[in-house]
Amino acid sequence: MAGLREGLPSEALLTDPDITASYRTDMASFCPAGDPAVVVVPRTVEQVQHVMRTASALRVPVVPQGARTGLSGAANATDGCVVLSLARMDRVLEIDPVNRIAVVEPGVVNATLSRTLAEQGLYYPPDPSSWEQCTIGGNIGTGSGGLCCVKYGVTAEYVLGLEVVLADGRLISTGRRTAKGVAGYDLTRLFVGSEGSLGIVVRAVLALRPKPNPALVLAAEFPSGAAACDAVCRIMESGLVPSLLELMDNTTIGAVNAMAQMGLPDSTQALLLAAFDTPDARDRLAEVGRLCLAAGATEVVPADDAAESEMLLQARRLSLVALETLGTTMIDDVCVPRARLGELIDGVAGIAERVGLTIGVCAHAGDGNTHPVVVFDADDPDQARRARESFDEIMALGLELGGTITGEHGVGVLKKEWLARELGPEVLELQRGIKRVFDPLNLLNPGKVF
Amino acid sequence: MAGLREGLPSEALLTDPDITASYRTDMASFCPAGDPAVVVVPRTVEQVQHVMRTASALRVPVVPQGARTGLSGAANATDGCVVLSLARMDRVLEIDPVNRIAVVEPGVVNATLSRTLAEQGLYYPPDPSSWEQCTIGGNIGTGSGGLCCVKYGVTAEYVLGLEVVLADGRLISTGRRTAKGVAGYDLTRLFVGSEGSLGIVVRAVLALRPKPNPALVLAAEFPSGAAACDAVCRIMESGLVPSLLELMDNTTIGAVNAMAQMGLPDSTQALLLAAFDTPDARDRLAEVGRLCLAAGATEVVPADDAAESEMLLQARRLSLVALETLGTTMIDDVCVPRARLGELIDGVAGIAERVGLTIGVCAHAGDGNTHPVVVFDADDPDQARRARESFDEIMALGLELGGTITGEHGVGVLKKEWLARELGPEVLELQRGIKRVFDPLNLLNPGKVF
Ligand SMILES: Cc1cc2nc3c(=O)[nH]c(=O)nc-3n(C[C@H](O)[C@H](O)[C@H](O)COP(=O)(O)OP(=O)(O)OC[C@H]3O[C@@H](n4cnc5c(N)ncnc54)[C@H](O)[C@@H]3O)c2cc1C
Ligand SMILES: Cc1cc2nc3c(=O)[nH]c(=O)nc-3n(C[C@H](O)[C@H](O)[C@H](O)COP(=O)(O)OP(=O)(O)OC[C@H]3O[C@@H](n4cnc5c(N)ncnc54)[C@H](O)[C@@H]3O)c2cc1C
Repeated sequence: MAGLREGLPSEALLTDPDITASYRTDMASFCPAGDPAVVVVPRTVEQVQHVMRTASALRVPVVPQGARTGLSGAANATDGCVVLSLARMDRVLEIDPVNRIAVVEPGVVNATLSRTLAEQGLYYPPDPSSWEQCTIGGNIGTGSGGLCCVKYGVTAEYVLGLEVVLADGRLISTGRRTAKGVAGYDLTRLFVGSEGSLGIVVRAVLALRPKPNPALVLAAEFPSGAAACDAVCRIMESGLVPSLLELMDNTTIGAVNAMAQMGLPDSTQALLLAAFDTPDARDRLAEVGRLCLAAGATEVVPADDAAESEMLLQARRLSLVALETLGTTMIDDVCVPRARLGELIDGVAGIAERVGLTIGVCAHAGDGNTHPVVVFDADDPDQARRARESFDEIMALGLELGGTITGEHGVGVLKKEWLARELGPEVLELQRGIKRVFDPLNLLNPGKVF
Repeated sequence: MAGLREGLPSEALLTDPDITASYRTDMASFCPAGDPAVVVVPRTVEQVQHVMRTASALRVPVVPQGARTGLSGAANATDGCVVLSLARMDRVLEIDPVNRIAVVEPGVVNATLSRTLAEQGLYYPPDPSSWEQCTIGGNIGTGSGGLCCVKYGVTAEYVLGLEVVLADGRLISTGRRTAKGVAGYDLTRLFVGSEGSLGIVVRAVLALRPKPNPALVLAAEFPSGAAACDAVCRIMESGLVPSLLELMDNTTIGAVNAMAQMGLPDSTQALLLAAFDTPDARDRLAEVGRLCLAAGATEVVPADDAAESEMLLQARRLSLVALETLGTTMIDDVCVPRARLGELIDGVAGIAERVGLTIGVCAHAGDGNTHPVVVFDADDPDQARRARESFDEIMALGLELGGTITGEHGVGVLKKEWLARELGPEVLELQRGIKRVFDPLNLLNPGKVF
């Protein structure tokens, strides 16, 4: 502790147990967490290096944190660890419209960056629904997705270069500031999605796009989840490129209405939201409308204008939070090839029935990425057991359908055993080998991922 | 050799020295190469596994090859190695329009895949100018770019999953068939651009897009390279998204005209080609035309139709081949932030003058990725020395301008020392660590990259 204190301003070191306790967990339920020995909130790269050098010398584990909105326990503290919160390293260092890049510190909040960029006609696409809280460092840590990814891709596609403090405190640069580059192995992409287990991201060069037009949204009501998924397949097969294609099931719609009085059609079984941000958005939405009707939609309602469109997106963004008001929740994140989406949705309904619990589903449907949310009473041990059981069955079903156990929320502690099942022993062994190259003492976020 | 023969059909094993000698090099000049002991041309994954198991047991190096169009010597044989040519594993295994993926063997030629996909309204963007020869496996090995990358991105963005035979013959799967996925470290992207040094790619899941409209092209003539680069900056700053933005200098134009009688305006100093594939292409090209004139263009000529557009693209694709007719060539591949493109072009002109050699430049200008081609007489040792000198000076300049020594052609043997300069000792050490995890005996393409 004395060693840590030496190289840090006093306000960067939090030791009051009441305060440090508030850094124990991210937003995942049912993940083990411990009490940090201390929380460090550095403002400079040098301070981060000092923390890692000290931790390495003393063999103390370090848990990097952004805004702790993660949903897999990847940012959870462990007993006696140093929590390293990057939240105060939150400056946008550079915006370069010719090169279409931004250089940022890791603590910049996603929505703050987006708004700053919008003023200059620029756009950083990845937009997790938690964007008002989550940080770019956390987005890089988890390889976040969001609503616009069906058209614009995920975080991995937008990180060009990084500055990273290694476990032993050395600072390295990876990648580039250029549009292209193939000099050596792609360490930048290796860091994206590594959940704080390979190094501390202290700076990122992000690729930007020109700001698109405001999206126009259409809402289509379906008598079943399967019919909505059929519409998703028809839309994607037709060659359309929506900027958003999201699904909310009946449970989700009800929860959002209850929370925010949004007046969504709550008798419908599944609501599909599609958007386009191209000049011909109205025509494209009309095509989508026709495809939805052909797939069995009972109602197709194009938004009148940008304001109504934004309201519908807001409803979708609230989905997870709204489902959380129904009880204790376990939020899954299974992604399947989109042609199998209907089978997944039907399968989840079957699982819900069998275990006798509510499982609401919202989904980045265009990407085949679903969030089945198991709702239960945590005080009832039998319900808790059945919740975990159904959570696992959903992942098993996802794998069976050729999918992955995590489309965007990561592995953390929540899905460690499942990662081993998805990857198999050979790949797991290679991944562990890579971990050892970067962190031979296993000090960076130990116990996460594998 | 007997061990190899056992598990392979006789036609898969080439031992005639006249034939094996033809597998010695890729298309790079001035890269050391050796004589392979044997060339294997497998047709199945099992045969590849057999080769790697045998080579591992006997500690014999293996050099994977696609079409050997590489420009860095990355596919060059070494004395006594097994050349493993994947060219006959050339089947398109699956095309799935709903999930927008293709599953292919590594030997599929890029243009063959593109044409097959086009029939189904689908599109695999990465389009190196060598597309009529080069293979998807080679594209993955080098992380290839091409003409359309300014809008659609490079190979790394389109590889979702791989099947890879490891150095010891084990077969692994990485990545996924889904649009998204963050289960563990991104090994797929680690393989992309690894130049055959981490494993043998035997199958790839590629992301596809709907086929865009045929592009409309505009050609703008400039009195200097700097003015053309200024136009590039204005275009990108304005928020336009061209599907192609390419530059040919006076030397390149002359070479293409001489080779293919294309009637390009050969008095102009720099020709900029811009294209759009959106429904509003004509309007966007008009904007580009105005920006070019503002940057000093002397002439702006929109193509009349798709045929004329295709002719202009063909001219650009021929550039490297045409420059090669001028003498012996060394082809550089420096990529800089696009705002620094003008400085690079001017700098290259200065270098050419100082060393007294012709250096023609063509460039993926929208990406800041230039190919300065040093032309010289290989029989003149002094010219050869000056050629190498200028080649190196160009890379030094690229690094000075915040760029990379290789935008898309890779490191191979040509740029090994320069890779160390770009990455620095810490990153190089990490990269070597990764190599050891995958290939502890250093049998896969040894002596390449680092
Ligand atoms: C209501 C709600 C909606 C959500 N919607 C989405 C969604 O649509 N899409 C989606 O992908 N996710 C979503 N999430 C999950 C979560 O918001 C994302 O994973 C987000 O990227 C986490 O960012 P964070 O700053 O909160 O990171 P944290 O949770 O603090 O950390 C996440 C991981 O990154 C690591 N990390 C953080 N900073 C650094 C750093 N500087 N260097 C190295 N490692 C670091 C941590 O160790 C941890 O492993 C949602 C969460 C909530 C609560
Ligand atoms: C005229 C011309 C124009 C070109 N234009 C471009 C351009 O616009 N953009 C661009 O990026 N490149 C360009 N190139 C370079 C070259 O074509 C590309 O690098 C191409 O990707 C190489 O493919 P290939 O099949 O010829 O691979 P090869 O040259 O045979 O091999 C390339 C690398 O990949 C490895 N490799 C090949 N197959 C496998 C496999 N199955 N598993 C593991 N490793 C493997 C090899 O070991 C080697 O390291 C051009 C080349 C020429 C001659």
